[in-house]
Amino acid sequence: MDFYETTLSSKVIYSGKILSLRLDEVRLPNGKTSTREIVDHPGAVAIVALNDKNEVLMVKQYRKPVEEVLLEIPAGKVERGEVHEACAQRELMEETGFFARNLQHITDFYTSPGFCSERMHLYLARDLVKKQGQADDDEYIQLEAVPMEEAVKKVYDGEIKDAKTISGLLLVYSTLKGAL
Amino acid sequence: MDFYETTLSSKVIYSGKILSLRLDEVRLPNGKTSTREIVDHPGAVAIVALNDKNEVLMVKQYRKPVEEVLLEIPAGKVERGEVHEACAQRELMEETGFFARNLQHITDFYTSPGFCSERMHLYLARDLVKKQGQADDDEYIQLEAVPMEEAVKKVYDGEIKDAKTISGLLLVYSTLKGAL
Repeated sequence: MDFYETTLSSKVIYSGKILSLRLDEVRLPNGKTSTREIVDHPGAVAIVALNDKNEVLMVKQYRKPVEEVLLEIPAGKVERGEVHEACAQRELMEETGFFARNLQHITDFYTSPGFCSERMHLYLARDLVKKQGQADDDEYIQLEAVPMEEAVKKVYDGEIKDAKTISGLLLVYSTLKGAL
Repeated sequence: MDFYETTLSSKVIYSGKILSLRLDEVRLPNGKTSTREIVDHPGAVAIVALNDKNEVLMVKQYRKPVEEVLLEIPAGKVERGEVHEACAQRELMEETGFFARNLQHITDFYTSPGFCSERMHLYLARDLVKKQGQADDDEYIQLEAVPMEEAVKKVYDGEIKDAKTISGLLLVYSTLKGAL
């Protein structure tokens, strides 16, 4: 089956700090044309960080787009030219104050592939070493260490509400369950 | 801890078919101001549909924003005024040709709460009845029935690459595992 769409033209509507928006005119497999609204995003990392007590380091923060305080795993966008592992260590440091001596890539996934290019690079961080954290100027976050089993329970209870945290916790939990 | 941000002004940059973009000037807890780039989305449904053979109905489609063909669970945006259960049945019908006699809400989650308001309503669909499907004009999708265990394996293999599908499959799999 032919799925592909050919780009006929592309128009940037907005180009900002963390995202840009463009409209692509595409030719569909049947020859018709359509418009795709596309949010371009540089990509992000998310980190399931486990301490020696098998607790997950999580952050509570206000998310303006959804107007709620959410409990999430540490995450952040990849800076221009930044290697993903370095980005994961930087975000972990900024949000939790820890450096991971053991950083393992778990998987990559798209958060909203229907309209957004954001690709999330998921890491498991262990052997954590306390360093001085340095939060971003406009980030207000509260660190919480949540036992792994309890974090997974919060996923099933619906208390954890964002896709990267749900995906990250469930992927890591079932991967490690034998070992924990 | 005070996390909340007060909206000082809001400016709509773009308003389109499936999303809109606005810039909010906010006052942070420390009194400083910052700009939030926010993609407004009407919300969406996603459906883990299991047939009598314990296969998950999945759809393969080209996703322009990421320029890849992805294997996903059926999903789509909520139309204005549409009840979520009705939306789930409509999307299931459009993408697979099946109606669910048993439709169960699993959970809700945000796909990218850092910059997007999209809330995903996840359903488990069972007791499927074949009806005539009617795909959207500009949707090219291929239906695949994937055994549940194999679908979960594809999550761990990295073959399934989108967050709603990863979250949906893992949530449903572990919920049902005892019963299957």
